[in-house]
Amino acid sequence: MNGEKTTNQRADGLNYAPKSEGVRHVVCRPGEFVFSAAYLDHGHIYGMATGLIEAGGELRHIYDPSENRAAAFKEKFPKVRVVSSLDEMLADSEVKLVVSAAVNNRRGAIGVRVMRGGKDFFCDKPLFTSLDQVEVARRTARETGRKYMGYFSERLHSECAVRAGELVREGRIGRVVQVIGLGPHRINIPSRPDWFFDRDCFGGIICDLGSHQIEQFLFFAGAGNARVASSRVANYAHKQYPKFQDFGEANLLADNGVAGYFRLDWFTPNALEAWGDGRTFILGTEGYIELRKYIDVGGTGEPDTLLLVNGTENERMNLHGKVGYPFFGELILDCLNRTENAMTQEHVFLTSELAIRAQDMAEMVEG
Amino acid sequence: MNGEKTTNQRADGLNYAPKSEGVRHVVCRPGEFVFSAAYLDHGHIYGMATGLIEAGGELRHIYDPSENRAAAFKEKFPKVRVVSSLDEMLADSEVKLVVSAAVNNRRGAIGVRVMRGGKDFFCDKPLFTSLDQVEVARRTARETGRKYMGYFSERLHSECAVRAGELVREGRIGRVVQVIGLGPHRINIPSRPDWFFDRDCFGGIICDLGSHQIEQFLFFAGAGNARVASSRVANYAHKQYPKFQDFGEANLLADNGVAGYFRLDWFTPNALEAWGDGRTFILGTEGYIELRKYIDVGGTGEPDTLLLVNGTENERMNLHGKVGYPFFGELILDCLNRTENAMTQEHVFLTSELAIRAQDMAEMVEG
Repeated sequence: MNGEKTTNQRADGLNYAPKSEGVRHVVCRPGEFVFSAAYLDHGHIYGMATGLIEAGGELRHIYDPSENRAAAFKEKFPKVRVVSSLDEMLADSEVKLVVSAAVNNRRGAIGVRVMRGGKDFFCDKPLFTSLDQVEVARRTARETGRKYMGYFSERLHSECAVRAGELVREGRIGRVVQVIGLGPHRINIPSRPDWFFDRDCFGGIICDLGSHQIEQFLFFAGAGNARVASSRVANYAHKQYPKFQDFGEANLLADNGVAGYFRLDWFTPNALEAWGDGRTFILGTEGYIELRKYIDVGGTGEPDTLLLVNGTENERMNLHGKVGYPFFGELILDCLNRTENAMTQEHVFLTSELAIRAQDMAEMVEG
Repeated sequence: MNGEKTTNQRADGLNYAPKSEGVRHVVCRPGEFVFSAAYLDHGHIYGMATGLIEAGGELRHIYDPSENRAAAFKEKFPKVRVVSSLDEMLADSEVKLVVSAAVNNRRGAIGVRVMRGGKDFFCDKPLFTSLDQVEVARRTARETGRKYMGYFSERLHSECAVRAGELVREGRIGRVVQVIGLGPHRINIPSRPDWFFDRDCFGGIICDLGSHQIEQFLFFAGAGNARVASSRVANYAHKQYPKFQDFGEANLLADNGVAGYFRLDWFTPNALEAWGDGRTFILGTEGYIELRKYIDVGGTGEPDTLLLVNGTENERMNLHGKVGYPFFGELILDCLNRTENAMTQEHVFLTSELAIRAQDMAEMVEG
């Protein structure tokens, strides 16, 4: 986790662990919030653990069926205890929360076990790959009173996105009317496990990468609900993986009239010094915001660049290291105090349902 | 036409006449290509006339029912002769082409008169506001052998867009898989005539502004045909004009599998030093191109900024004054030689039909 370039580009392709370089939001004392990590399939687990530790959490156990994966994780977090099952960490009454980045289609069942075990659950996105999984988790959360939270890193672990939320709330662009998200990703084939290319496992590109976008759309739109207007997926250039999807897009409409569009792809070219030129455009009646999240391509190259233009302001903000990631502390406090300030449970389930619906109804483009 | 800032922003709101500041493409000698201008309702007529004159054309007559409008135009083009009817210019056997920027829903009928009068027609976008109008023009073009060409200025009068077409053709981003266009415009209400706010006259925001986007999509996609997947329009913030639309968006799919999305709006905020932060993103299997057409917001502020990233190149190109507008010379040569190098007739009609279809099928968002 040290020595990353600020563009979040690492030689080994592991760029999943943004680390606060400036502002930190510590919310509790050592030992006050203990959590554990189980099923470490996706590198996002590093970012999830880092975010919670930076906010004051104590990572106690890890569990993974692969000894290599557990050992690699322990190397980054040496104080952690490797245990031999999920049940072992659930049996520790001090553990409040279990974090997981299992293979996508197994996350729902693990979350249900965790909630039944009396702990809150914090899951990498996508949280589910089918509506049935969401339904079971919804019921379990209701019955147990436990939380099933989501790591939507493209907003929660992005300092410019955090600041954008504040600017929208302050009314700096008037009423929001549309949110556009561009989510290109570098595929880096040698770094990917087999399940990455199998739609049954990863859930489809809209379910997977699109859940970030839908979460942001609902958040910036201030929407309580939304419907999918249309969506499409394609596998344009990776025919050697017939169950893969390298392109996806969707149009949504929120219940408050705000429109949403996003495009996802696995075409980040190698000369880009970041894993993706992720953008968000928030259009308001009085102005607009553009986020150049991971790199200001063609400009300074810096991550966390926010552009704000309205009737009187035309501002460029370089926010890297200046905002921090308040979500993680809010999540810890929500778990300790049984509040919903970081994110509501309904928002999490709604995001997942919309992502799966957009995926399931997507037209498959032949090309 | 002198003294504009390079951002194309003018105090009087007339920013319709890009002038070549560097490269010019002169294709004929004085007097070899004579054209006239009739119905000058939209300021685009200045850009159309300027483009043709810069390429060697001679503007002979103008006609407009409003004496004031004709006089204002003559002030910019003093050598022109003001005539009292369209027929008068059609009677001049040296006139090869008539250009027009009439009220949108009257353009089709004027074009038919021009073609029946034995001249080619060069029309501001949108070229039509109903499929019936397109059908009549199609038939007339076939019967008379005359051309009905379109002024899709957001590509033809944009140096970075011209260069993008060359880069795509050279294969610099591999195979194109998607084109996204963002088309924000400044509304500048005091400068607008009544018909601007009446859907029956302007044709709807997708028909009007969207025809630029569809033309670019078909062009960059190299598509022979396309269909509209979904579209939406709204009037979010101009309820005092109940027949206006201040927002529109559409998804298209080309016959070769290339996806297209665009958003249009009238929300350019006053602190932006250009009439709109128009963008185009062309995604290819090997790289991508971003166009910041009229202003590099948050960066240099220059227009005609092109960013190219692929496997080995990560380039920023400042193209203002460096490319010119070859379309106008190609159009003149097409008229003289009866070729289709500037643009095919089918491309023009297809663009118009798709724009009208996307408009007609658009869901009206309440919000």
